[in-house]
This record gives sequence, structure tokens and C-alpha cells, in this order.
Amino acid sequence: MMRRLLLISNSTQHGTGYLDHCMAEILDLLGDVRRVAFVPFALSDREGYADVVAERFRREGIEVARVTADEAGQRTVEDAEAVFTGGGNTFRLLDVLQRTGLLDIVSRRARAGMPYFGASAGSNIAAPTIRTTNDMPIVEPASFRSLDLVPFQINPHYLDPEPGSTHMGETREQRLQEYLEENDTPVVGLREGGWIRVEGAGGRLGGLHSARIFRRGRPPEERSAGGPLDDLLA
Amino acid sequence: MMRRLLLISNSTQHGTGYLDHCMAEILDLLGDVRRVAFVPFALSDREGYADVVAERFRREGIEVARVTADEAGQRTVEDAEAVFTGGGNTFRLLDVLQRTGLLDIVSRRARAGMPYFGASAGSNIAAPTIRTTNDMPIVEPASFRSLDLVPFQINPHYLDPEPGSTHMGETREQRLQEYLEENDTPVVGLREGGWIRVEGAGGRLGGLHSARIFRRGRPPEERSAGGPLDDLLA
Repeated sequence: MMRRLLLISNSTQHGTGYLDHCMAEILDLLGDVRRVAFVPFALSDREGYADVVAERFRREGIEVARVTADEAGQRTVEDAEAVFTGGGNTFRLLDVLQRTGLLDIVSRRARAGMPYFGASAGSNIAAPTIRTTNDMPIVEPASFRSLDLVPFQINPHYLDPEPGSTHMGETREQRLQEYLEENDTPVVGLREGGWIRVEGAGGRLGGLHSARIFRRGRPPEERSAGGPLDDLLA
Repeated sequence: MMRRLLLISNSTQHGTGYLDHCMAEILDLLGDVRRVAFVPFALSDREGYADVVAERFRREGIEVARVTADEAGQRTVEDAEAVFTGGGNTFRLLDVLQRTGLLDIVSRRARAGMPYFGASAGSNIAAPTIRTTNDMPIVEPASFRSLDLVPFQINPHYLDPEPGSTHMGETREQRLQEYLEENDTPVVGLREGGWIRVEGAGGRLGGLHSARIFRRGRPPEERSAGGPLDDLLA
């Protein structure tokens, strides 16, 4: 697979502006690309969302084309030099991509080497399924199958257990262990401030923190920021 | 509808034992019932789960029959004096109930007046759908449709926003507002330590805290513990 991917945990890092903490990496992925197609379906206000994204990329000299949920949107993706999918609700996002046929088009183009980057929900959908999203299932998509650009699942906004918490809901690690009770695809728990960069068969972890890897039948494993993830891509 | 329901936010309150904080209310619901059918499908270890529940109810002089995912389980529910569904993962629970036909049997019997009580995932499934669960979609059920015993959605383990948090994931309130962007069924945000008791057309909020009610186009509303919920049941 020729894939060129950047899968970001969170679009906004606490205390900084939208995409600021990962913009250098985005620009490195884009290289000479000066026009990005933006998929806004994870939020309800698609136009407002696209305006925010366009404004942010204008500062980098990059134009943004909003992908619409129709045939014109299909053409936008077919002709795109790169695609960015923003965060929000993963179920809502996937449902629109499935109903419009855009899921298959984005997947095919990204597998053929078109740069794809996503944040949060936009990273969740790069996995085989959305079974490791943190989002509420507010919309029922026809299937949990997603872009399938990498052979592992992603859990963005990965949170370590809070010491001393009295809340009885499951910790993130417990939820991912429950995932592994039912599935055997590995999961990358991507802490806020982190991302995964993939170029063809190789990949590495970027950003501020280590990531936590969950695999069935093994204890969780920490991978350092800057280190390779090639084994998970094989 | 003759329903007699007890929908509990969480089975274990911090610092107390399993079901301790709500056992008086459970016993009030059960009245003379001395045998409860237990639905264990939200956890992976069904036998171990049923053992814990049986041990807890033995202390109250109540026998527990484990519901199995087969025809014998269907008979257990058909003959049950009361049904209890324990917490765990809501997607896993619903998937088994749908695949075994138990969903329709439990729903029919509870609508006819058999006492039904649930905690966490077991309360989520009493709503029309599981679209307001907090759980990870680790299993893909055929549909999000659930028992439909009350005309509102439930969000158990409801959490108020944490002041000063630097985590960028959505707050619970943001998630429920996103739910209302896509759906117009009201949602009861049920804080830990709380429950909903329903008897026929009437209902009230019980437990330690107020609940937060979310409705499309209105600001969220607090309902006091001990107060009526009849308007939401109409």
C-alpha cells in the first residue's frame, strides 16, 4: 500500500490554537500540496466547521475545499490532492461517508497514495472499524466498517486512569481490554498531543507522549514518541 | 403499560459493596418475589458474574437464576418472577439479547408488569435505543433498538464537567447535546448513586443526587432526588 497518512489524536491541544501543535507535521505530510479537501461530517454545522478549517490553513498558504454529501463531494474527493477529516462524532461521520459512497472513494484514493490526515474521529475512521471510538452512538451507521487504511485500531484522546477517582465508570484501559475480549485487532492508545505518521510500509509515533499498545493476551506496552511502529503496520 | 421498573445508574457506589446503595429500593420493587432471573451478557465471564450476583442476593434471601444465551434462557425469562440485567458493555449485551430473541421476550414481559431492574448497561437497554450509552462499540449489534420500556433515553454514570480539566475530549453534556442534534427523544442524565423507579404511568427519581434532563431546543433542567418524572413518562 502506498499510503501517506497522519493520524492525530486531537485537533486542539490544551492552551494552544486549532491544529497548532501538529501543523509542522501536517505541512511535512503535504509537501508541495496547496489545496486540501476537508470532510466536515463529524459536526452538525458543516459550513461553520469548514470556515474554521479554511481560516486556519489560509495562514499556511493552503486552500481548503469543503467536501459535500453529494455527487459534487465525490468529485471533490476524486480530484483532491489531499484529504483532511476533522473531529467530532465518529458515528455521525461514518454514517454520512457510508450513505454517500464517499467512504470507498476516500479509502481507495488514500490506499493509492493520496495524503490523508485526520484528527480524533478523522483518525478513528482510518482503522478497520470504529469499534474503539470514545464517541456516543448518536447515529446508527449501516456498519462499523471504516476506511481500513491501517491494520490496527486507534483510540484517540487516550486517557490514563485518574489516581484517586471515585467515579465507577470503566477506565479507558478497561474499555480497551473489553474490546480485546471480543476482537483481536491491536489498538494504539494515542494520548492527546500525539500522532501516527505512516509512509507506505513504515510508520512512527510523533508528538508529545508515548502511546500505549493493547494486544490480546499480552500486557499493554508503551511506545516512545519518535519511535517506529513498523511492526504494527506489517 | 403495566411496567414496574427500577433503572439504576451504577451497581457499585464508591466506598460501598455491590448493589448496597440501592438494595432497599430493589427489595421494595420485588415485594414478595424470592427468585430473580439474571441477565449476565454485558460481561465476558457470564458464570463468574452470575456467581457474584447470586451471592449478593443470597444475603437478602433471594435466589438467582442465570439466563443463558439459548432456548433454556428463553424459558428462564418466560417463567421469571423478575429480571435483573447487570452492567458492563451495552453493545455486547444488546447483541446477545438480539441474537437469542431474548430482547423481545424481556420487553414483552416487562411491559406486562413483570418487575425489571437494571444497572448501568442494564438501564441503558430499558430505553428505546442504546444511543446514549457511554460504552465503547466493541461489538456491532444488528440494530441499536433496545427494550423500549420508557419513552426517554438514559445516560447512566452521568458526569458533570470537571472544572479545570485540560483534557480535550467532549464533556458528557456536549455528547448529549450532539445526541439531540440528531434525535429528539429526551435524555435523563442519571448521576452515580441515582435511579429511576417506574410504576405504570408514574415515575420518580431516587437516590443521592438530582438528575439532569436534556431536551432538544431547551436548556438542561435539574430534577431533584425524590421528585416525580411523570411528565417524561407520558
